[in-house]
Amino acid sequence: MNDDLKALVRTIPDHPRPGILFRDVTTLLLDPWGLRQSVERMAASVPTRPDLVAGIEARGFTLGAALAVALGCGLLLIRKDGKLPGETIAEDYALEYGTDRLAMHVDACAPGARVLVVDDLLATGGTALAAARLVRRAGAAVGGARFLIDLPDLGGGDRLRAEGIAVEALMTFPGH
Amino acid sequence: MNDDLKALVRTIPDHPRPGILFRDVTTLLLDPWGLRQSVERMAASVPTRPDLVAGIEARGFTLGAALAVALGCGLLLIRKDGKLPGETIAEDYALEYGTDRLAMHVDACAPGARVLVVDDLLATGGTALAAARLVRRAGAAVGGARFLIDLPDLGGGDRLRAEGIAVEALMTFPGH
Repeated sequence: MNDDLKALVRTIPDHPRPGILFRDVTTLLLDPWGLRQSVERMAASVPTRPDLVAGIEARGFTLGAALAVALGCGLLLIRKDGKLPGETIAEDYALEYGTDRLAMHVDACAPGARVLVVDDLLATGGTALAAARLVRRAGAAVGGARFLIDLPDLGGGDRLRAEGIAVEALMTFPGH
Repeated sequence: MNDDLKALVRTIPDHPRPGILFRDVTTLLLDPWGLRQSVERMAASVPTRPDLVAGIEARGFTLGAALAVALGCGLLLIRKDGKLPGETIAEDYALEYGTDRLAMHVDACAPGARVLVVDDLLATGGTALAAARLVRRAGAAVGGARFLIDLPDLGGGDRLRAEGIAVEALMTFPGH
């Protein structure tokens, strides 16, 4: 599935720790064809135009913005807590050790809006679930989640689907 | 100049400190028309297609990615130090108190490539200059810099032009 795009993803062994194969999308983004194809194929996977694309800081801002333009909708920034200037709502999510927190402007989406969550990589799904909870707390609906890469053995897709979120990724890298 | 886009920028008074008028582009990005027009007008301001658009973390990733797709070139990520998985080069830049550091992958651009630097807001120009130095250290050429917003009273445009970098912004907010 999208093996031509997979060939543009660089794998860095033993990063950030021994035994981890880090999937580096920066090489895909650097490639003009790879970048454009990623956006076009992701757009083609969206059956109904959402009102907003929510990009998750920081790499999710890249495909998120380009996808929003391609779909003709707006871009909602879901940021690390403390980065947004207006009034925010926030959600914690688990890291391997400890927790981190995502935030969005409380007035960023109208109640009833349909929001597509976008990030570059789906691993355990913790950040995407936190983003989805923020969207729902704002009274909007999560109209699915899209990723460049899914690491299916880490279970993020299953966790998102259990919350009623339709998940698709352009590429999967099994074996983690 | 682009008063229709300026009307979509939210001004938050006394953020992050009393007396500062913070120009918040998130409201512009949320607007489907504003987002698309920003990308199209920025693309129209680029006379020669660069090889790469360099987006500066984090908000520069948004317009940077969309502009790269619009221009048909690749996207180079200029990140806070410590965020990139491969071998990097880094440049310090001054903050109001202390310094911070930007990094890019050492192999991200080929020698001789033309790179357009993109960020959302030009203030003192410190981050954009650090990005330009990284591009030049990699042996590539800086083919200009583009911003959504210029705060001309903070002098960033003058500093970039003194380094031979052609600067344009869609909007200016004088008075800072």
